[in-house]
Amino acid sequence: MKTKVKRVPKRGHYDKETIYRILDNSYYCHVGFIHENYPVVIPTAYGRLNDYIFIHGSSASRMMKNLQTGLEVCVTITKMTGFVMAKSMFHHSMNYESVVLFGRAEWVQGKDEKLLALKAFSDGIVPGRWNEARPPNDKELKGTMVLKLKIEEASAKIRDEGVKDDAIDAALDIWTGVIPIHEQFGEPILANDLKISDSVMQLMKA
Amino acid sequence: MKTKVKRVPKRGHYDKETIYRILDNSYYCHVGFIHENYPVVIPTAYGRLNDYIFIHGSSASRMMKNLQTGLEVCVTITKMTGFVMAKSMFHHSMNYESVVLFGRAEWVQGKDEKLLALKAFSDGIVPGRWNEARPPNDKELKGTMVLKLKIEEASAKIRDEGVKDDAIDAALDIWTGVIPIHEQFGEPILANDLKISDSVMQLMKA
Repeated sequence: MKTKVKRVPKRGHYDKETIYRILDNSYYCHVGFIHENYPVVIPTAYGRLNDYIFIHGSSASRMMKNLQTGLEVCVTITKMTGFVMAKSMFHHSMNYESVVLFGRAEWVQGKDEKLLALKAFSDGIVPGRWNEARPPNDKELKGTMVLKLKIEEASAKIRDEGVKDDAIDAALDIWTGVIPIHEQFGEPILANDLKISDSVMQLMKA
Repeated sequence: MKTKVKRVPKRGHYDKETIYRILDNSYYCHVGFIHENYPVVIPTAYGRLNDYIFIHGSSASRMMKNLQTGLEVCVTITKMTGFVMAKSMFHHSMNYESVVLFGRAEWVQGKDEKLLALKAFSDGIVPGRWNEARPPNDKELKGTMVLKLKIEEASAKIRDEGVKDDAIDAALDIWTGVIPIHEQFGEPILANDLKISDSVMQLMKA
């Protein structure tokens, strides 16, 4: 089994609920695959629908062409959530949540499944946007390659704790604590003066 | 050459200045390597000093033990900087900056070099913290494995643009724009009531 969390096993999670929650809480991943005997890691956006995650790209993309042959991939999703500042450098740490998926990507070819996948992809990033924008036409669909990866061999790892210090350092006069990290959306940079759409309003509020 | 940006070549950058700026603007990476013939991608923190990046981990960590044998690695650093919302779904995009490094990690063994590396690592995440906290003692140093990767085969990719839409969609009444994404630090969760240290104050202001 590839996905056992070896170090600090209490941080490992293998239940669907935890894994899907982390997947739904992010929108981009790092895809690892082997190309000409060396490892390659590429960032890309994803969306989840049921037991699959979807990625997409141009039909001309090297990564997509590589992956659609059914290469083994490792897809990792990470969110850093805090800096843990201790009295000793040694006990400094980070809070985070991550998911590692292993498997082989499958090529989504049928038009209907492709549209469903792209909608899931879009909904995962900006919920509701799919229903506002012009949907892809046949030419655009043809130029877009969609791949899916079944969420089968997966593990999550979470650190969400406070500061641990050694008793021996207790008396040191050094501030300790956790600094939370958030992703925040700034004021939209408008490309036109139309009314801001509902999906964007929702996103800004979230 | 592994690092040529094939798709949208105008987004590729190979100059030191751009690559180091992106590296210094982030603090965690995704490390890809080949383990038993399959790809593995693991998130971890890093720091840069001169022409090297440093990662560290427990001497018992599977990844560290794998990498110190001189395995080929691909280290990718990504920062998402904006959602690009167009009139057509097809032209939706993301702004981001990323760096991809290839090479073989080297084991940092000498005590002095290890301390320098750990300081660089720490300074890359929370500048100044190294001088506030208790430095690692010999036992802690022994339990920490440090690896360095020379920044040699590297490329950066940046999208930092507005919305591109097709002329045919111009009349559609759909809001478009770019939503900037920022990483923000929240109010520290205090572990004690000591005075907040300078490094933390600086971080909160940045």
